[in-house]
Amino acid sequence: MHTPQAGLDLELVTIGTELLLGYTVDTNGAEIARVLSAQGVRVVRRTAVADRPDDIRQAVAEALRRTGAVVTTGGLGPTRDDITKQIVADLFGVPLRFDEAVWEHLLERFRRFGRVPAASNRSQAEVPEGATVLTNQWGTAPGLWLAGAPGLIVMLPGVPLEMRKLLEHEVAPRFAARTSGQVIRSLTVRTTGVPESTLAERMGEIESEIAPLTLAYLPGVEGVDLRLSAWRLPPDEADRRLREAAELVASRAGEHAYGSGESDLAAVVLEAAGKRRLRLATAESCTGGLVGARLTDIPGSSAVFAGGVVCYSNELKTGLLGVPAAQIEAHGAVSEPVVRAMAEGAVARLGVDLAVAVTGVAGPDGGSEDKPVGTVWIGIASAGGVEARRTMFGGGRQEIRARAAQAALFLLWRALGGAPRSPETARPSTS
Amino acid sequence: MHTPQAGLDLELVTIGTELLLGYTVDTNGAEIARVLSAQGVRVVRRTAVADRPDDIRQAVAEALRRTGAVVTTGGLGPTRDDITKQIVADLFGVPLRFDEAVWEHLLERFRRFGRVPAASNRSQAEVPEGATVLTNQWGTAPGLWLAGAPGLIVMLPGVPLEMRKLLEHEVAPRFAARTSGQVIRSLTVRTTGVPESTLAERMGEIESEIAPLTLAYLPGVEGVDLRLSAWRLPPDEADRRLREAAELVASRAGEHAYGSGESDLAAVVLEAAGKRRLRLATAESCTGGLVGARLTDIPGSSAVFAGGVVCYSNELKTGLLGVPAAQIEAHGAVSEPVVRAMAEGAVARLGVDLAVAVTGVAGPDGGSEDKPVGTVWIGIASAGGVEARRTMFGGGRQEIRARAAQAALFLLWRALGGAPRSPETARPSTS
Repeated sequence: MHTPQAGLDLELVTIGTELLLGYTVDTNGAEIARVLSAQGVRVVRRTAVADRPDDIRQAVAEALRRTGAVVTTGGLGPTRDDITKQIVADLFGVPLRFDEAVWEHLLERFRRFGRVPAASNRSQAEVPEGATVLTNQWGTAPGLWLAGAPGLIVMLPGVPLEMRKLLEHEVAPRFAARTSGQVIRSLTVRTTGVPESTLAERMGEIESEIAPLTLAYLPGVEGVDLRLSAWRLPPDEADRRLREAAELVASRAGEHAYGSGESDLAAVVLEAAGKRRLRLATAESCTGGLVGARLTDIPGSSAVFAGGVVCYSNELKTGLLGVPAAQIEAHGAVSEPVVRAMAEGAVARLGVDLAVAVTGVAGPDGGSEDKPVGTVWIGIASAGGVEARRTMFGGGRQEIRARAAQAALFLLWRALGGAPRSPETARPSTS
Repeated sequence: MHTPQAGLDLELVTIGTELLLGYTVDTNGAEIARVLSAQGVRVVRRTAVADRPDDIRQAVAEALRRTGAVVTTGGLGPTRDDITKQIVADLFGVPLRFDEAVWEHLLERFRRFGRVPAASNRSQAEVPEGATVLTNQWGTAPGLWLAGAPGLIVMLPGVPLEMRKLLEHEVAPRFAARTSGQVIRSLTVRTTGVPESTLAERMGEIESEIAPLTLAYLPGVEGVDLRLSAWRLPPDEADRRLREAAELVASRAGEHAYGSGESDLAAVVLEAAGKRRLRLATAESCTGGLVGARLTDIPGSSAVFAGGVVCYSNELKTGLLGVPAAQIEAHGAVSEPVVRAMAEGAVARLGVDLAVAVTGVAGPDGGSEDKPVGTVWIGIASAGGVEARRTMFGGGRQEIRARAAQAALFLLWRALGGAPRSPETARPSTS
């Protein structure tokens, strides 16, 4: 796979019984791994254990023995007080001490929300002797950074927002200072509307051309992401190699590569329309508002997106968009004439330059031999005319709807002329 | 926390470099934990390691030493052939043998898709001697079940669909036969519109009342879930105790408890409206289609949901819903008169019985001292009149929009009379 150079290796231990019941997906662990990798720290193992002292002690002790550097999350909150802190203090052979500054911070926070601390809150101000307190401005449990004979341990609360803020403001900078300027960086080229196997053929012998970078194919409902990774290079070299490799990958992916990094296709569409000073609208049936929700999820979308119509019933297709009832009668609501009329109706009645319409069979019921579940018509209309395309999506109701929304945005983007795959569109993300 | 009775303990080892870069969230691990818990297996640890033979060997060997029962996922696919299989064969001291039946199955699959296997595919048919092959009808890499001196190991491919199908059809039944009829089951009571601390006060000394069940508070953007868990009880007793405890929890949560299990508030709203034979519509500004998308995500929603209007621009608020331009001018788009007019306009123009309207400041820009980011007005209109409510949500743009959509559905549900918290609404899920 790759031969990483020497550097800081680390393990994550996430604490929470919910993780072992499988009801909670470990997003904290993924977030920590992503942020620390960007600082050149190689996360070599992630372990999840229940809120049981013996399990926590064993997992933390083993991780320290293997790598000498551990980040924990969870087991610090007000309802599970001290479990992790006490265990770590024992492992490091230090006592817990009452910290006046932490207590003051906690009192101040309670005052601000008009609450009175309970006696049990005092234990939240106890910290292992010698630990650096990472002040938590977003909650009550501080983070803790402790170095000693067993190694380095960083304890973070499990509440995602508090964990994320402490990670960003307190933990990442401290690790950056320790990794002698080498980074692990990734850059993703995002594609849609093309299967993984076709992309792999287009890429050819790219692995050897981009070495020492590595390439991973990550398929999902929005398309296939092509993730390039640089392992422990100086930041400038990592960025340069990633940028060059991303250009190569994007040019081979061709018209299906719509952006890089965290690019959302909705943002790409809004930017393309904004540059051309065009106003957009949507007319949605089977996606029921998803395309509008995708577009309005982007800050500043109101400059480009006027609005849309969710015409789930046939009456509203006629009433709000002027689709002739006779057409629905003759061809069905999932048909080329209807999707064309929906798109044209949206341009005319919502007074925009460009509109996209979606009508399809999302299932699980409503399919027929002629129009099986997964059949979706997408139409694009402007003053210049209207075009329509029939597509077929796999998966359950949710996947079909998500894929249809993404395909609608892709066709909008193509109608807007797409975008050149220049270094600007393929610039490295900062993560 | 709880004192589980004796039974089968097990560890999960998930294999994939992406998990350690943090770009992929470990949904496979959560799925396996959930399904096996339902069979009475207690998952005591989850470990994620990279696709490196040494790391895989170490993690699997340690897990076998600790618990003697391990499920792995990943490291079996066609591009990473044999890594896990070879390591496990070594640990169990058995050779890999070419399995004609697996090879025939693979050839048959290739024929069906009109493809020809490469020489390298032959290694996919090699299995550790003594292993039971779990036939994979959904892909090329079979699952493997192997018992020997080090313990029991089950190897599953990493592709989520294939993993899930093998888990359900091949793995879960085999574990069910080993756990002597005891199950670990959970039942969630879902609440919204009430903070965790208020809920905790309402619950009082419930932990002792529901013992041996346990209760966990799980806050999220849609509200706070209250998860009850039964640990290794006979199925009938687990279900009965969970049902009784859920009734108690729901009655203390009061009007904020809208369902149980995997209940989606959108489905609860559609069911309540369907029973009363009422048609619904939405008028969305800041949520941009999210409320419509939530409702249409539910199969069969077309029987109740007519459609909606996404009036992101002020022109469309006037043009599509008849909101007087003078009102927008006088009070702003985020105001009580405008949300009332939006809701009334939706009832009138979309011809429905009940409509919900949402207008707010989702940020990051557009806030003012008077109407800070997070300010959202929600209106509900019917032939009987219109009511409006101002709320304030925290978080970023996404959270504010998601919370506003959930609050809109909650007010719709309240307007529909809510629902009695009977055993029917609090019946145990099968997971």
